[in-house]
Amino acid sequence: MTASPLDSAIFRGLLRDGELAPLFSDTAVVRAFLIVEGALAKAQGKVGLIPETAAAFISRAASEVRIDPAELSDGAAGSMVPIPALVEAFRGAVKAPEHAAFIHWGATSQDIWDTGLVLRLRRVADILSGRIREAAKAAGELAERHADLPMAGRTYGQIATPTTFGAVVANWGAPHIRHIGRLDALSPDLLAVSLSGAAGTLSAMDGMGPEVRSIMAEELRLTDPGGTWHARREGPGAFAGWAAGVAGTLGKMAEDLLLLTQSGIGEVKLGETGGSSTMPQKANPVGPTVILAMSRRAMSQASFLQAASIHRQERDGAAWMMEWMAIPEMCLALGRALRMSVDVLTTLEPVPAAMERGLDPEGLGLIHAEALSFGLAAMMPRPKAKDAVELIARRAVAEGRRLFDLASESWPDLPLDDIFDAARGTGTAGDEARAFAEAARAL
Amino acid sequence: MTASPLDSAIFRGLLRDGELAPLFSDTAVVRAFLIVEGALAKAQGKVGLIPETAAAFISRAASEVRIDPAELSDGAAGSMVPIPALVEAFRGAVKAPEHAAFIHWGATSQDIWDTGLVLRLRRVADILSGRIREAAKAAGELAERHADLPMAGRTYGQIATPTTFGAVVANWGAPHIRHIGRLDALSPDLLAVSLSGAAGTLSAMDGMGPEVRSIMAEELRLTDPGGTWHARREGPGAFAGWAAGVAGTLGKMAEDLLLLTQSGIGEVKLGETGGSSTMPQKANPVGPTVILAMSRRAMSQASFLQAASIHRQERDGAAWMMEWMAIPEMCLALGRALRMSVDVLTTLEPVPAAMERGLDPEGLGLIHAEALSFGLAAMMPRPKAKDAVELIARRAVAEGRRLFDLASESWPDLPLDDIFDAARGTGTAGDEARAFAEAARAL
Amino acid sequence: MTASPLDSAIFRGLLRDGELAPLFSDTAVVRAFLIVEGALAKAQGKVGLIPETAAAFISRAASEVRIDPAELSDGAAGSMVPIPALVEAFRGAVKAPEHAAFIHWGATSQDIWDTGLVLRLRRVADILSGRIREAAKAAGELAERHADLPMAGRTYGQIATPTTFGAVVANWGAPHIRHIGRLDALSPDLLAVSLSGAAGTLSAMDGMGPEVRSIMAEELRLTDPGGTWHARREGPGAFAGWAAGVAGTLGKMAEDLLLLTQSGIGEVKLGETGGSSTMPQKANPVGPTVILAMSRRAMSQASFLQAASIHRQERDGAAWMMEWMAIPEMCLALGRALRMSVDVLTTLEPVPAAMERGLDPEGLGLIHAEALSFGLAAMMPRPKAKDAVELIARRAVAEGRRLFDLASESWPDLPLDDIFDAARGTGTAGDEARAFAEAARAL
Amino acid sequence: MTASPLDSAIFRGLLRDGELAPLFSDTAVVRAFLIVEGALAKAQGKVGLIPETAAAFISRAASEVRIDPAELSDGAAGSMVPIPALVEAFRGAVKAPEHAAFIHWGATSQDIWDTGLVLRLRRVADILSGRIREAAKAAGELAERHADLPMAGRTYGQIATPTTFGAVVANWGAPHIRHIGRLDALSPDLLAVSLSGAAGTLSAMDGMGPEVRSIMAEELRLTDPGGTWHARREGPGAFAGWAAGVAGTLGKMAEDLLLLTQSGIGEVKLGETGGSSTMPQKANPVGPTVILAMSRRAMSQASFLQAASIHRQERDGAAWMMEWMAIPEMCLALGRALRMSVDVLTTLEPVPAAMERGLDPEGLGLIHAEALSFGLAAMMPRPKAKDAVELIARRAVAEGRRLFDLASESWPDLPLDDIFDAARGTGTAGDEARAFAEAARAL
Repeated sequence: MTASPLDSAIFRGLLRDGELAPLFSDTAVVRAFLIVEGALAKAQGKVGLIPETAAAFISRAASEVRIDPAELSDGAAGSMVPIPALVEAFRGAVKAPEHAAFIHWGATSQDIWDTGLVLRLRRVADILSGRIREAAKAAGELAERHADLPMAGRTYGQIATPTTFGAVVANWGAPHIRHIGRLDALSPDLLAVSLSGAAGTLSAMDGMGPEVRSIMAEELRLTDPGGTWHARREGPGAFAGWAAGVAGTLGKMAEDLLLLTQSGIGEVKLGETGGSSTMPQKANPVGPTVILAMSRRAMSQASFLQAASIHRQERDGAAWMMEWMAIPEMCLALGRALRMSVDVLTTLEPVPAAMERGLDPEGLGLIHAEALSFGLAAMMPRPKAKDAVELIARRAVAEGRRLFDLASESWPDLPLDDIFDAARGTGTAGDEARAFAEAARAL
Repeated sequence: MTASPLDSAIFRGLLRDGELAPLFSDTAVVRAFLIVEGALAKAQGKVGLIPETAAAFISRAASEVRIDPAELSDGAAGSMVPIPALVEAFRGAVKAPEHAAFIHWGATSQDIWDTGLVLRLRRVADILSGRIREAAKAAGELAERHADLPMAGRTYGQIATPTTFGAVVANWGAPHIRHIGRLDALSPDLLAVSLSGAAGTLSAMDGMGPEVRSIMAEELRLTDPGGTWHARREGPGAFAGWAAGVAGTLGKMAEDLLLLTQSGIGEVKLGETGGSSTMPQKANPVGPTVILAMSRRAMSQASFLQAASIHRQERDGAAWMMEWMAIPEMCLALGRALRMSVDVLTTLEPVPAAMERGLDPEGLGLIHAEALSFGLAAMMPRPKAKDAVELIARRAVAEGRRLFDLASESWPDLPLDDIFDAARGTGTAGDEARAFAEAARAL
Repeated sequence: MTASPLDSAIFRGLLRDGELAPLFSDTAVVRAFLIVEGALAKAQGKVGLIPETAAAFISRAASEVRIDPAELSDGAAGSMVPIPALVEAFRGAVKAPEHAAFIHWGATSQDIWDTGLVLRLRRVADILSGRIREAAKAAGELAERHADLPMAGRTYGQIATPTTFGAVVANWGAPHIRHIGRLDALSPDLLAVSLSGAAGTLSAMDGMGPEVRSIMAEELRLTDPGGTWHARREGPGAFAGWAAGVAGTLGKMAEDLLLLTQSGIGEVKLGETGGSSTMPQKANPVGPTVILAMSRRAMSQASFLQAASIHRQERDGAAWMMEWMAIPEMCLALGRALRMSVDVLTTLEPVPAAMERGLDPEGLGLIHAEALSFGLAAMMPRPKAKDAVELIARRAVAEGRRLFDLASESWPDLPLDDIFDAARGTGTAGDEARAFAEAARAL
Repeated sequence: MTASPLDSAIFRGLLRDGELAPLFSDTAVVRAFLIVEGALAKAQGKVGLIPETAAAFISRAASEVRIDPAELSDGAAGSMVPIPALVEAFRGAVKAPEHAAFIHWGATSQDIWDTGLVLRLRRVADILSGRIREAAKAAGELAERHADLPMAGRTYGQIATPTTFGAVVANWGAPHIRHIGRLDALSPDLLAVSLSGAAGTLSAMDGMGPEVRSIMAEELRLTDPGGTWHARREGPGAFAGWAAGVAGTLGKMAEDLLLLTQSGIGEVKLGETGGSSTMPQKANPVGPTVILAMSRRAMSQASFLQAASIHRQERDGAAWMMEWMAIPEMCLALGRALRMSVDVLTTLEPVPAAMERGLDPEGLGLIHAEALSFGLAAMMPRPKAKDAVELIARRAVAEGRRLFDLASESWPDLPLDDIFDAARGTGTAGDEARAFAEAARAL
């Protein structure tokens, strides 16, 4: 294995994210740095801070040179950040010292690192957003298809009153609609160019710094934050808070699926399950298991990232390095959980027969107790009705008789067929399912 | 003490929040529950689900009865939630069983608890938002007043290049402007009425549930979420993410102040400091210390709240109870940190003489090294210039001579007076300070 | 409510710990401070650092005066710590200035606070240890009683192979035996007197400091750490790690119980359950729910306490205050979870009929698949046997036929009665249950 | 980069641990699995559960075959765990189906994974323990060398009373002595063979399971836990608690060093520092920065690992996978922090002149205020003395005069030379330093 199982060849199939992982590869990191150095030079050429020919040269070279990430290792070992080594390697690679001298002009390592990061995070955000949309749409279709399929609503693990599978799925999917909106709202703060020089003041850019930053922002299609964010980390912090929210939604679905696929419950059948090394009959709910683990992992990284948002003074090496540790895995774990969620949502099937059994596992019809008590409240005050039903519910359990039969004996005049009809007892469930389905379609 | 020092009489003066704490008092909790039961009955009367006279009676009684929180203790011990006991106590208190029977009609405990909570959180959000505004405005004034006061910019604890105190303060205050906007944006999701009945389907409200919820929302000035959020906790989760962000901003300011008030640095003087039980000369930075501790605490509660957002099935007792544990202290710790931040920001004073000393603690003028290297880059390629300056910077340290003097010897033609002028070397600092000040004024 | 629900009157019955909470009351905190001041004076009198008459007077007064915790609030508000105010109040209370002058001689606030804390933690540790013992013993009896009661072993929520209820209970209880040993091992480090003066050097005690500390340690029955622990927090840190471990064990039991008491599973019946505000038939597993929430809470506080163990320089106000926030609730939540665990363990009952059903929910006998494959491995290579059984297991599901019947058809010569006997298939379960029971008895 | 920067080529020099990382390589993981399968077969041959010839063959083959980790990827993708694929690949590789059939006899994936893990953790524990010893010894030498070098003791960032550099270093090193003892104490629980089969009962081993486990334990030099620990994770949990403790100790040292190396303080000079990409004079404290970041990271992983210790039922896929995510990085980050700590401790030098300046940064001698107040307490009651000194301390600051001079005027008869002698004012500091040095030598 490796420090992170997400980097392990053993788990390439299970945990590696083919679309997101390349964005965090060493190569992509170095590439992004070079793009930033190129955009910086170009902008500085435009405003006349460095010679235009040098600017053009650097900008072109930045997209052409190849720097081996491993080359930066010694430099990073010495100064903690790989940027000085990168600048040196870049200068060495271009073989035009008269131009190369203008590389990285007046910038500091954190400018390059942070801008390089958000360049890649823009793509990450797009991918995550796309997957959330997919998950929401898949949930929407599922919710619609099974909007009225009755199943037991469960609270504290106990059967409460009927709901429908569509409503359950709506609760998995509806939060995603909010998450998409929230990501859009925070993106401008997160996806901001960082350019503020040694101590956040762009002092080495002869007063042209803000203009350079603004041009860079346009060039790189990032926000111009209008100031430094070296030690103000509310952008990454908000992204972390958002990621924790998405993870919460996915984790909830995964927990529900683990419960619904339990032996003896079996109300949902997954499209794919995993075998055991020793038990021939086992069908493990691998998807929900991994979604849950990855969601919890993403949450934990988010929490670490938020804690790392307290940066001291003008730049804080330790807090910054903590961000480096958290961001890639937070994105990759969340991305993996999302990808698997889409897979699970598009392949699972409810098992109506098991759901029907689940509505009444003891064959006593207790799930209708609340409905009965409200029916009875037509004849007596509600508290008395509740007490009366509680009594016969206990008798039903003790004597192993159906609540319906006991109710018939006690209150023959009640419309018991209606009261004991699960489909009628699902209240708003179907409508909530359909409303969500429509909202998801509209995404 | 107590389970939380925020509840302790010993720390009443230091940690208790006079404005926020009452919102989390037992009395306020019970009061909120009754308001919700009242609003529920009123709405149900309006749609004809319960008799209008009963509705009017319950609604009036809800604002009049007094229920001792301690009375709910036995009930809560039995069923985990205090609502069944509350309903019973309420029914008992009104002495009109024919009306009382309609109390809590078709609702479940979580409906009442959650709605009661957000009713109080609305007020909490207002107070927090007001304090953030105050903190931003106080920072704005401070930033404006000292926009051009030079001081050392420090990165990794080391002097980097000059900045200004105004710019430092701007970094403390500017994120707050975002936090206010973010709170506004998430409020509709957080401040939503909860009404969905036993298993989220409002099955006991004869199809009138959604209308009842909508009327309640209007009555209580909350959002109508259009569905259940019993087991969808993205609202509280987003609030947690937001609180962690604010805490990050406050913690950063506190850390900076702890560093700036250090003995031997002393660049900021706090309005109030604390004494020692044994050392006559001690002046401890109590304010920043408490702000940092409360910020870290609020963050930790936020992280616990986010982790608790994974609710299983239709309602999850354990996850829900975890929310109960985290929310009050998260709000109270954050509120306390904010209150103290306002106090600190309105009473601290920079110490210009110390800042001047701080710009050059060794008396060697090393802070101008970057500026010198850029000056020198007019005469030679920048990399060579940097190397050259690095060399004489090392000589300066080794020989205890001023960088200015060594530079004069080596490069007599450079405009060294300009290069070594801290005020000129502060780049965009003053402008950033003023831009923030203006934005804060506009709040 | 209150900052912590553990301080709320509403939850007095559910969450307040009658034995532990008094140890964290404001009164107990102040009382402990006075005991420490008394012991300090006594020790200083013994070595001649302060006059013996003063020492005797202070020591006696310390056990007699009553100081209202609220009196310390203003002082704590000013200097963050309540000790200077306490010293002043103590001096004021004794009305003998000639003796009172020698109160708190050469000590610093943190000496008094930390020693006062560990005095109470000694009692906390005793109580927690006693409860762990009770929990282990209760589990031991349960494990013994049901050592051979077969039930489904479940992995990934899926039925795997049979185990016994006794073995399941052994896994809940056996870790406690380790926890007791670990607490004993860490206690000397945790329960150490703190006495080291302003900056950890006892400089104001004329060289007699170490002797004073040693006498105090003996007097208070605490360890003499032989040095300062003002800014070395491995004692509290180790306690936190330990608490997280205990919480992990309790949380595991609670999760298992939530799963075993589910509707449709019902293999365990709790002694007490909670009702619903609307559903007459509900029997919520309140005990396990609260145990899980409190365990997670204690874990989170432990993690906060560990993070707070990084104290800067000779004393770190913020890190120290973070400890104050975490310790009481960590102890109280853990204590509550333990108390409830004992209650649950002594009142729950397994439901053998449900367990029997659980061994074969589909009536197909699939739980015996592994055993069958090993039986078959007598006739063919094990991999082939596993494949063959996998095949007929799939047929069993598809055709709704019993695995036993299909196996009889295919391999009539196998000793199928033996292979399909759940009681025989429980392997070491019974023995593990009994071994644990014996170990628990020996505690 | 990669999911974890610890896996990145860019940070190979800075963050990769040459000694520990190989233990977490994919190759090492697979190797360990094979060793376990080999030991299992050997033990099963010994007790006659499988044919001795097969056992001998498998055991030999296990040490000879080479399985490409990437080969396991598809299998892991399907069933979450790579063990079924490993068993298949192993069988395929040995080309002796009659023996191969007996591979993995009666074991489950978690048996192999967990035992494979602890085999590697044994080596990890040795390495970590060795480094802690090295760190303690390096600190011991440093503490001894500078046992009496006076410097300012600082509390809340403020100068308190004098201490010595040796005493400061003792506080960095002394906790390590405990950590070593604690690791030894928990190792038997952590380093336990896992062998309990499908659902923890070894049901497929014909009653010989416990004997097989015992032989395996001996063979692999691991503990025989005498039962299952599939779902009892107090071993990993205790290891996590321990790691958090070590991280706390390292983090404290790092924070102290970041403060001591600050510009304007400069009381410690690091052996190696890092340069800046733009500032020629910068000497960043890279070592302490990385130690702090890695310590915080290790702590966070420890906290995640503790939270993952709640495993449901007989085996819990999600909780288990969370452990996989946390353990490698926890060990690697901690190991890196330790390695760097040794480097830092063996190369740093105190700067006595700066320390002397630090004892009196304002040139007013305020650090002696406590000593003066105790001196004065010979002439008047201590509270009065403290007040009197507080008064002249304030005058000293206001008038910019030395405390010594003001004291001379007010109390000419006091032995002021003694009172104002920093070396004499360091109390027990020197002795604590030497006591620690001796203890470290004895390790």
